[in-house]
Amino acid sequence: MPQADIGLIGLAVMGQNLVLNMSDHGFRVAVYNRTASRTDQFLNGLAQVGDIIPAYSLDELVDQLSRPRKVMLMVKAGEPVDRVIAQLLPHLEPGDIIIDGGNTHFPDTERRMLEVTGHGVRFLGLGVSGGEEGARYGPSIMPGGDPSAWPEVQELFQTIAAHVDGEPCCRWVGENGAGHYVKMVHNGIEYGDMQLICEAYHLMQAGFGLSVDEMQEIFTQWNQGVLNSYLIEITADILSMRDTDDIPLLDRILDSAAQKGTGKWTGINALELGVPLTLINEAVFSRYLSARKDERMRAAQRIGEHAADFKGERVQVIRDLHDALYASKIISYAQGFMLMMEAAKNHSWKLNYGDIALIWRGGCIIRSRFLNNINEAYQQNPELENLLLDDFFLQAIQGAEAGWRRTVMLGIELGIPMPAFSSALAFFDGYRCSRLPANLLQAQRDYFGAHTYERTDRPRGEFFHTDWTHKDET
Amino acid sequence: MPQADIGLIGLAVMGQNLVLNMSDHGFRVAVYNRTASRTDQFLNGLAQVGDIIPAYSLDELVDQLSRPRKVMLMVKAGEPVDRVIAQLLPHLEPGDIIIDGGNTHFPDTERRMLEVTGHGVRFLGLGVSGGEEGARYGPSIMPGGDPSAWPEVQELFQTIAAHVDGEPCCRWVGENGAGHYVKMVHNGIEYGDMQLICEAYHLMQAGFGLSVDEMQEIFTQWNQGVLNSYLIEITADILSMRDTDDIPLLDRILDSAAQKGTGKWTGINALELGVPLTLINEAVFSRYLSARKDERMRAAQRIGEHAADFKGERVQVIRDLHDALYASKIISYAQGFMLMMEAAKNHSWKLNYGDIALIWRGGCIIRSRFLNNINEAYQQNPELENLLLDDFFLQAIQGAEAGWRRTVMLGIELGIPMPAFSSALAFFDGYRCSRLPANLLQAQRDYFGAHTYERTDRPRGEFFHTDWTHKDET
Repeated sequence: MPQADIGLIGLAVMGQNLVLNMSDHGFRVAVYNRTASRTDQFLNGLAQVGDIIPAYSLDELVDQLSRPRKVMLMVKAGEPVDRVIAQLLPHLEPGDIIIDGGNTHFPDTERRMLEVTGHGVRFLGLGVSGGEEGARYGPSIMPGGDPSAWPEVQELFQTIAAHVDGEPCCRWVGENGAGHYVKMVHNGIEYGDMQLICEAYHLMQAGFGLSVDEMQEIFTQWNQGVLNSYLIEITADILSMRDTDDIPLLDRILDSAAQKGTGKWTGINALELGVPLTLINEAVFSRYLSARKDERMRAAQRIGEHAADFKGERVQVIRDLHDALYASKIISYAQGFMLMMEAAKNHSWKLNYGDIALIWRGGCIIRSRFLNNINEAYQQNPELENLLLDDFFLQAIQGAEAGWRRTVMLGIELGIPMPAFSSALAFFDGYRCSRLPANLLQAQRDYFGAHTYERTDRPRGEFFHTDWTHKDET
Repeated sequence: MPQADIGLIGLAVMGQNLVLNMSDHGFRVAVYNRTASRTDQFLNGLAQVGDIIPAYSLDELVDQLSRPRKVMLMVKAGEPVDRVIAQLLPHLEPGDIIIDGGNTHFPDTERRMLEVTGHGVRFLGLGVSGGEEGARYGPSIMPGGDPSAWPEVQELFQTIAAHVDGEPCCRWVGENGAGHYVKMVHNGIEYGDMQLICEAYHLMQAGFGLSVDEMQEIFTQWNQGVLNSYLIEITADILSMRDTDDIPLLDRILDSAAQKGTGKWTGINALELGVPLTLINEAVFSRYLSARKDERMRAAQRIGEHAADFKGERVQVIRDLHDALYASKIISYAQGFMLMMEAAKNHSWKLNYGDIALIWRGGCIIRSRFLNNINEAYQQNPELENLLLDDFFLQAIQGAEAGWRRTVMLGIELGIPMPAFSSALAFFDGYRCSRLPANLLQAQRDYFGAHTYERTDRPRGEFFHTDWTHKDET
């Protein structure tokens, strides 16, 4: 006799925590894991208190589910998802719903949706952000896929999602891979946010010579204002952590960044779609450069480090740095939303950018007060061409501009690398530039490759070629 | 009775010019084009003087060739290459050689090599650079593929290639897709070189208010020194070109850059291989941003352009700009060679970096005096870890460093976007930094995702996790 609202396959930490979260909210969940012992462990341990039903085969799992059956996969992204889907399909009937809640690359979601739909089964690709903590107590959820399937699970996911001001951080994103796509951009933006904070820390630490305590105080203060966000908050926490011998723990952590590839996916996608996503790409490249630790040590030895010592007034440069961080963050989000707008065109998605900001303002790693401002910008004008043209953000960036310029110049003077800050500023100056030097570039291309150019005094779409070397021949 | 040294398929301009080039040097070429009328036109026109043999079917073409037959494809990259190979294979016998001289993406070359080899036929993927002019009078040629096939065509290609100091700009690059790969990196570097020149022009034009005549003189001067290169040379030419009404032609060219995708391929490849190719990526993104011409015009209206007026001493800032261009160019090539080193590891290629510099120093778009210095660096030390650690380049960059910093700071002060210059400088400062802020980044990742970190006081490969929020729970 079917009794469960949903079945969940894959009881690693994320899967377990989602089950507990659902159970907390009164949903009945049937669970299955390839290794039965993990199911038993889970049921005998954390899951004791809830109304959770174990299953030891896919048959058993599916038998427990009310119709249409909803089966959520929380298995490792990639080939395992395909395997489980293949095993699962024979047990399902038309109208049933498979939900992939893993960290899947969106093209895989689009491919799987086609396959699964071919069997009459409906498919959802769910971006879930917030790590283990989020999964347990309220993640940010970005659902995409078959719109007809969404109403069947909307209540469940909106209930278990994070809530901010009474609103769930979970709204329908769009068809096909849209949910996983937006999750990918979220992760790219996360790369950018983290890099910006790291550069601010670097300037304060190596440039201004501030102690961890001083920096902890600054980040705590910043967290009270427009920079208020989870990542700023945990940075303050991290700065206050001491090793057993009371040395700041940060000093003992190797400066070699790892990654799981979602920032890289975002950068590649931006290159493919023709969107200038400069800041996030610098963040990805910064991780790559950091990973060349040994080579950097040799280069530091050979070339020498830094360019000059800081001889300024601390209060002012820290105020400037705050503004630089804020302005750069605006650029990063503006670029991220540019990317989503281009993807929407490309995939015929109807993305609601205000809703995406709402989804992100709680539960996930990039959650912040800032996202409320983005939501408001798109609420006021759903057709907004660019965040930088919104009144609030334009004022914000213009207010921060002078300090931003001074900060990047100071970093250059001191020889402290600030690739994300400076690429953001270069983007801003390029974006608001009515005449970029691409006229010369087009002339060069026409010169050596006869690639033609358009003219400022002729309609777009008319192409001209000049015989540049003619004068040499005569 | 077979009499031709090589057959060439595809008589567009590049194909025609290569045939004429071969013919000039005494090679007998049989030619075939899908549309016979083009073959006739070619034979009755330009090709009249040479010993060129027309063929009107693949059968006829192959019959003309001495064994092992060598057939070179100069057809549009992509599906047409696959089509022609499929049509051609039945006419060939084991040991014959197919040569793709198109602008092919290297993964396609690797795929085709496998297919063709399955038929016992040998395959070469040839990167050819230099445009129509180069094809006619001496291109830069980057051969890769089946090493056993190379000696069969080496004399031909080394003869028709550009020559510098008596050396052909054509040497064996490596197996499989290595030739087309190195051609791709060449094009990426070309994007970077062009962007750097554009930024220098922009600063002079919009920042310093120089006239085209003044700038023409500056580029002509620069072309006498360390910046000597084809792209600097043609920039001077372009600056001197006037429209019919004597207005500088550059002022009439639309600042919206187009592209054929090879820069994008390079950027994507760098992201995939984990190499911080920041400058070329900024160059690609700058083209994307330039293409948003209408949006930029609106943004300029709304936000306002530039930040400050220039009030400095021209001679000094132009000297600084020269140094900035030189230093940034060194960074761009250092990054490009980093990318090739990583690709070589990845594909098990034995790339000879000195030879690659030799190949590029003539015939192609990025040809320059500079490439002699790169050749010398790798000749002195074939195991050189990075161009920036070579004596010559280290001295060069250190000599240019002060002016480079001043230039980027000035661009920021004036609000002139210099994304490639500034990303190059940020890279330099990051590369020679023994301690980047990635320790904080790793702490953040461990905080929110339990991703663990390595420690400076423990061996690499040991991973640690901290219970960062423990203090909140107690």
